[in-house]
Amino acid sequence: MLTLDKVYRAHHLLKNVARYTDMIESNGLTDDCDFRLKAENLQLTGSFKLRGAFFKIASLPKDDREIIACSAGNHSQGVSLASGKLNRKAVIFMPSIAPISKVEATRKLGAEVHLVDGVYDDAYLAADAYCKKTGGIFVHPFDDEDVIAGQGTIALEILEQFQDVDTILVPVGGGGLCSGVAFTLKQLKPEVKVYGVQADGASGMCRAFTEKQHVTLERVSTFADGIAVKTPGELTRDLCCQYVDGMLTVSDDEIASAILALMEKQKLIAEGAGAAGVAAVLAKKLDLAGKKVCAVVSGGNIDVNILSRVINRGLLSSGRVAELKIAMLDKPGQLREVSAIIADCGANVIQVRHDPGGEHADIIGCFLHIKMETRNREQLMQIRQAISNAGYQILN
Amino acid sequence: MLTLDKVYRAHHLLKNVARYTDMIESNGLTDDCDFRLKAENLQLTGSFKLRGAFFKIASLPKDDREIIACSAGNHSQGVSLASGKLNRKAVIFMPSIAPISKVEATRKLGAEVHLVDGVYDDAYLAADAYCKKTGGIFVHPFDDEDVIAGQGTIALEILEQFQDVDTILVPVGGGGLCSGVAFTLKQLKPEVKVYGVQADGASGMCRAFTEKQHVTLERVSTFADGIAVKTPGELTRDLCCQYVDGMLTVSDDEIASAILALMEKQKLIAEGAGAAGVAAVLAKKLDLAGKKVCAVVSGGNIDVNILSRVINRGLLSSGRVAELKIAMLDKPGQLREVSAIIADCGANVIQVRHDPGGEHADIIGCFLHIKMETRNREQLMQIRQAISNAGYQILN
Repeated sequence: MLTLDKVYRAHHLLKNVARYTDMIESNGLTDDCDFRLKAENLQLTGSFKLRGAFFKIASLPKDDREIIACSAGNHSQGVSLASGKLNRKAVIFMPSIAPISKVEATRKLGAEVHLVDGVYDDAYLAADAYCKKTGGIFVHPFDDEDVIAGQGTIALEILEQFQDVDTILVPVGGGGLCSGVAFTLKQLKPEVKVYGVQADGASGMCRAFTEKQHVTLERVSTFADGIAVKTPGELTRDLCCQYVDGMLTVSDDEIASAILALMEKQKLIAEGAGAAGVAAVLAKKLDLAGKKVCAVVSGGNIDVNILSRVINRGLLSSGRVAELKIAMLDKPGQLREVSAIIADCGANVIQVRHDPGGEHADIIGCFLHIKMETRNREQLMQIRQAISNAGYQILN
Repeated sequence: MLTLDKVYRAHHLLKNVARYTDMIESNGLTDDCDFRLKAENLQLTGSFKLRGAFFKIASLPKDDREIIACSAGNHSQGVSLASGKLNRKAVIFMPSIAPISKVEATRKLGAEVHLVDGVYDDAYLAADAYCKKTGGIFVHPFDDEDVIAGQGTIALEILEQFQDVDTILVPVGGGGLCSGVAFTLKQLKPEVKVYGVQADGASGMCRAFTEKQHVTLERVSTFADGIAVKTPGELTRDLCCQYVDGMLTVSDDEIASAILALMEKQKLIAEGAGAAGVAAVLAKKLDLAGKKVCAVVSGGNIDVNILSRVINRGLLSSGRVAELKIAMLDKPGQLREVSAIIADCGANVIQVRHDPGGEHADIIGCFLHIKMETRNREQLMQIRQAISNAGYQILN
């Protein structure tokens, strides 16, 4: 049974193993409330998963059985580091589609990594078969009391760092983090509200929470891979139903905006899952006026290719990068004139493409595609106006 | 005169004003040494500048004279926040080329902002004229004992957080941060080595340090705007000459790589200036084998457009985004074949452009430009090989 005692034991054992991560005040993320971030993206391995994995493995009988795990990402790094610190051999099964950076990181932390063709479920089957053959111990990523107790230590730190907190938002995939945090808080300070946040495209625990029954989603669709879970845990579902005050969902666009806001205002990198709680606050999913709110930024392991896309999307949507398609006559001097207008308005052209046009263009016309860096929407409007005033037609 | 007493007074006054920023262990940035980061990018206003500005303003006689400052970035935010906390009116002159985000941030913190057409020097002249007219008090960004004492508080925190540190790297523009940190350390623990780090394209203090005389650079060229200073301070030059163990420079490419490494491995956003110390470690500018090293990550206020470029450049140089130019006959089916090869290798095409070729192309040929996301250099090599094996010529 999960007990507060276990959470405190985990807290004690994790000293000098996990980082006591920073509680960071919002730097203009919202004016609604006193908003702070528990920065578990700055945890060793880049996510909170180390906590649960370490306490689980530390609680096992001391023998030479191997530690087995299966994950495409954060859990594998947590188990690998925890096993190394406890001098146990870890064997971790990862799907071959896992980002190479996570595979490398897991290996570097000491685990033996087996890449399995296919997706998570294929890796799970391989891990299960290996366990049965070798008698190793499987460490579940979330549906395990010791793992949940380890994640609960975050709640103890939050209460120390933000003593009058009244609302806590926690990202939810399988439900281990949320169960641990909610259980611990409700034992110590039940008046603090705890909300779980899922991605719209992977809201299994939300359904389980509402329907109070076992749920398996047919498919999940979100770029927040850390919470893209088809089947929430059973133990975690029961704990969430008992201790969590509400479940919310956010869209991938809301998550992407939150990632960009965290970068710009807080100087922090969050992965999609890690930004879900912040996204719920920024998208005003709850009335938090005047509240004292903490969001757990659960991890920062985002592929930099994806981060680059998130930034570009954010830049486009906030008017700081713009693409114009301008119809012009295919004659000398026009590019120079348009360039001059843009320069005079203070923007910076970063890409130009001439396009002879298709069936809709005049034979002697062409399209000019110009990509430029702009300061904001107002500057972009000025540029559009100036180009139109000079007699050019903007087609987008 | 700068005294340790002043630094301790600043330390005391800054409690509950500035954040006691985190000291973060390297997460695989280097295997050479025990490397940790003093995360002043997580300071309020996104840089260390708040410390010096607050102590300076707090040390002034309590009257109703206005606080005047001039800066394109971090100093203006520091002065604005500090003035607000001390109930003084701040008037800040910023060049109109300053990023709109920094102008907005400075205003939001409470200062009256005057935008001045031109560059920093023009804004400085306007601030000076305003000071003379109004009798306000000009707060210099670095060449001021109280400002330097405020920055020195970082050294006190480093000694508390990383007790056996033996080497500290500090970014240097005007020299205020470096002077304060070096002075304080040499008073308390002179065996700790302190190195200043500048950008290759803005190494005024390096020259002043070597030549022991006043230096004004004709031009500066670096994207690290926080340390792009033409004329280092005189006070700071004397302090650096007396207390700093050495001055180093790093290239813009080395700074860009450090920014990317901080994002990926530490989940932290650093601006160019902020990453300079880390860049010196990663580029092995010093022999640090077995040492206990701290780099001050002095700020995180980087424009997200620039960050996007840094990421894209880093992705290209590490083989995680690649562009291929392939010669082909202009006939159906070839794009399909090349696409299939790339997909089979597991990479992700993100942009395709057909180019009929110029004077060097066959009349019936064309060029295919393909941009794709790849995992690493090895995968890219596999793809190149497979495309060549299928009989296509890759031209880049």
